Amino acid sequence: MSKPDTPKAEKAETLKPRLPRGFVDRRAGEIAAQGRMLETIRRSFELYGFEALETPFVEYTEALGKFLPDLDRPNAGVFSFQDDDEAWLSLRYDLTAPLARFVAENYDALPKPYRSYRAGYVFRNEKPGPGRFRQFMQFDADIVGAGSVAADAETCMLMADTLNRLGLGGQYVVKVNNRKVLDGVMEAIGLAGPDKAGQRLTVLRAIDKLDRLGVDGVRDLLGAGRKDESGDFTKGAGLDAAAVGRILAYVSFQADAADGADKVAFWEKFFGGWHEAVGDSETGREGIAELHAIMRLCAAAGYGHDVIRADPSVVRGLEYYTGPVYEAELTFPVTNEDGQTVRFGSVAGGGRYDGLVGRFRAEPVPATGFSIGVSRLFSALQLVGSPLIAGAEAPGPVVVLVLDRENMADYQRLVALLRADGIRAELYLGAAGMKAQMKYADRRRAPVAVIQGSNERLAGEVQIKDLIEGARAAESIASNAEWKAARPAQFSCPEADLVAQVRAVLARHFPSTEI
Amino acid sequence: MSKPDTPKAEKAETLKPRLPRGFVDRRAGEIAAQGRMLETIRRSFELYGFEALETPFVEYTEALGKFLPDLDRPNAGVFSFQDDDEAWLSLRYDLTAPLARFVAENYDALPKPYRSYRAGYVFRNEKPGPGRFRQFMQFDADIVGAGSVAADAETCMLMADTLNRLGLGGQYVVKVNNRKVLDGVMEAIGLAGPDKAGQRLTVLRAIDKLDRLGVDGVRDLLGAGRKDESGDFTKGAGLDAAAVGRILAYVSFQADAADGADKVAFWEKFFGGWHEAVGDSETGREGIAELHAIMRLCAAAGYGHDVIRADPSVVRGLEYYTGPVYEAELTFPVTNEDGQTVRFGSVAGGGRYDGLVGRFRAEPVPATGFSIGVSRLFSALQLVGSPLIAGAEAPGPVVVLVLDRENMADYQRLVALLRADGIRAELYLGAAGMKAQMKYADRRRAPVAVIQGSNERLAGEVQIKDLIEGARAAESIASNAEWKAARPAQFSCPEADLVAQVRAVLARHFPSTEI
Repeated sequence: MSKPDTPKAEKAETLKPRLPRGFVDRRAGEIAAQGRMLETIRRSFELYGFEALETPFVEYTEALGKFLPDLDRPNAGVFSFQDDDEAWLSLRYDLTAPLARFVAENYDALPKPYRSYRAGYVFRNEKPGPGRFRQFMQFDADIVGAGSVAADAETCMLMADTLNRLGLGGQYVVKVNNRKVLDGVMEAIGLAGPDKAGQRLTVLRAIDKLDRLGVDGVRDLLGAGRKDESGDFTKGAGLDAAAVGRILAYVSFQADAADGADKVAFWEKFFGGWHEAVGDSETGREGIAELHAIMRLCAAAGYGHDVIRADPSVVRGLEYYTGPVYEAELTFPVTNEDGQTVRFGSVAGGGRYDGLVGRFRAEPVPATGFSIGVSRLFSALQLVGSPLIAGAEAPGPVVVLVLDRENMADYQRLVALLRADGIRAELYLGAAGMKAQMKYADRRRAPVAVIQGSNERLAGEVQIKDLIEGARAAESIASNAEWKAARPAQFSCPEADLVAQVRAVLARHFPSTEI
Repeated sequence: MSKPDTPKAEKAETLKPRLPRGFVDRRAGEIAAQGRMLETIRRSFELYGFEALETPFVEYTEALGKFLPDLDRPNAGVFSFQDDDEAWLSLRYDLTAPLARFVAENYDALPKPYRSYRAGYVFRNEKPGPGRFRQFMQFDADIVGAGSVAADAETCMLMADTLNRLGLGGQYVVKVNNRKVLDGVMEAIGLAGPDKAGQRLTVLRAIDKLDRLGVDGVRDLLGAGRKDESGDFTKGAGLDAAAVGRILAYVSFQADAADGADKVAFWEKFFGGWHEAVGDSETGREGIAELHAIMRLCAAAGYGHDVIRADPSVVRGLEYYTGPVYEAELTFPVTNEDGQTVRFGSVAGGGRYDGLVGRFRAEPVPATGFSIGVSRLFSALQLVGSPLIAGAEAPGPVVVLVLDRENMADYQRLVALLRADGIRAELYLGAAGMKAQMKYADRRRAPVAVIQGSNERLAGEVQIKDLIEGARAAESIASNAEWKAARPAQFSCPEADLVAQVRAVLARHFPSTEI
């Protein structure tokens, strides 16, 4: 692991600088741009009365529980290590399980319902891939202690409002389903009971792949199985044709429903179809009634079914959901890894998890909420050229060059003058000559360089070089000699005018920016 | 571990909600107040031309190295776990080792010197105690690629400016020392060479305790050893009286120096004393020359020795320091755990670590920088009643009460109206009655409650309750009946005026706050 990639003898002892797979560094430009996005989300959540909470990165493994989607590897997915007293600790894998622990621990002291938002990194000990990281950020909003579906309706509206604020209005849809409806459909085709749990999971996973594989692919996965392009075979749920047909009929309501105009008639027809799918299942009927109530509340608050709508294809992988589940999908087209044009897809999702806090308490505590996938949403904003995140990075600092290093204290004084006036400035601290220092200023995206040679110092003057103007001039003047003669963007001024002159140059280039 | 603390049968299966020791949750008020502090630090660092960087929480254990102060337990201190391929991963224990990895990995792409700042949590697998956490935040600024002591001078000035911006001017001192001087003193008393490493460490630790134990305590630790109040004996460095005297003479320059007025004369005298301490040691003399240069640069930029000064007692525990070391100490008095009055103490510290990036490269890469201990600095601001962090938490949201739950959609509409105008508002989503809802609004620190019963709805009206005025009135009116009759802070208005009326109440109470 520490072997260098060149065979030179003097390098044999050096470590290779690298990160474990699935972890990345982030530079200033990305931090600034993403910061604007996070601040917009935060304001949106606060407008809805949610308050900030921060829980630590480490929890007792037992407190987090095992609710990750990949049931094939029940012990994987989480980074864990043992404490001095042998107790197992884990890095949090989401922001919901820690919230449940926090609420249970502080139950009596919290106002209930308790509206909380949290932003932070979570960790998955999974195989990383393109766009799949082992450390990634989530931004969550949750309402704990509200059993009413009005709470689910609020979180769906909050998702929509947040995407609107981010400038994504008209480019997303919030899709809502209910685990109870899915359970009802299973019941209706004879998949109830604990012995059918594995089969139910296969069915849910098949439905979850509707977007990617289409109706035909899902049909195969519900039946005998499916062979993909590479020839790999995935075993199916083994349902008979009637059961497969029933599920596909339920799932395909999505497409039929899109053109409804009269809302009441639309939802009547829509949920009428769902009733057929769940048959006599009481759980299923209860699920539909809840969904209908959510749709009515959203409609009353002005959200049309083009913005928030019931959709049978939403499954959500996490194990702890007990009722409504919802996700926000961006609808604009992108090209995927295989070169196909697809919708951008889900950027946020969540649902009701009435049992999670109850793990710590004798009585159940209802709760609902969602997570935004911060990196994915940020990619989307980059893709649409969002003005919110454009130009987020501030210009570079003014660089004071150092011509004779014995007089460092004098240069230090010039920098201090600029900073005292609130101008971002730095002293060149390297050992390079004038030319390399100019290259440095360029790399730092410095708008201005301040230069003082010994002659200038004796005369009490400084040279101010406008690097933005200089770059422009250099582009338009072909001959280097001509450019040097013109020196269009460099002038001399008394030291006493340094701050005012630098400020004037900055104001010219960045009229509205705080430097 | 999962045993409940009550013996009830129905609770037998519940987990106990709790955090591992040394980890804490943070609520909205603290997050907001600390956020203001962090933002002030960030602006200060940016003014000096430092740019943001974020590295992940997990690194290869090998890349981080083992540089924690507690050498007695060289394998402890870090949370580590094995990856799928058996490689060891660790949670970062500081923000310096990851920076070294980042710079080495991106060396050619970075401007050099590279000025970077980073804020984030670090983890120590240590025994937690009062004010000692296993997850805590640091805020670092570093200059990589600058061998000149002008870089150390800049970071010391940045420390000072940052504390000034935080309103702590006149209440701190930045103390600077040099590992080379300490090495020189060791050399002078015959503690050079690799076989004396353990003894040198004992001496450094003794010096490091000067603040806490005073000169007598340090004398014991340099000699045979020291018995503390509890009777516990700490073995000393075993130096003879001459060596002990020499170190104490060096260390005690601190007190003598405080009253100097003429700076040149002061430092001449001061460093003259240091020269005696290091004797003929070349390393020691080089260290003094560097320190003297740093003092001159700081003085030229206007920082007096009351703000930044050379101090022989500064040691800094981390193993990777190679030259100047510095720390910012808050000088105001506090009462410690034992009831004694002491200085608040160190809130930031750092130094030069020229070998850390070089671990990854054939050639050495000079670097210097410091960390702010965020929690400690925040405690200090709380202690001095800093106006910066006072009142950081915004008022609570307007709460729309729910009197008849069948009309939830109507209440939802009222909330949507307020939010659409940018007023933070929420719908009461619980199942409680009117009285409990008022209590809820109180707990949420809501400034206004909006109430609409069926009569009001029919009349197209809403009740607006000014909860701040109401609380005031309730305080001044003794009789409950009288208060009820007066209802001084509640009025009715047409639904169409809801937003304007709520805004008027908010403007009265929070004239300058953005709601």
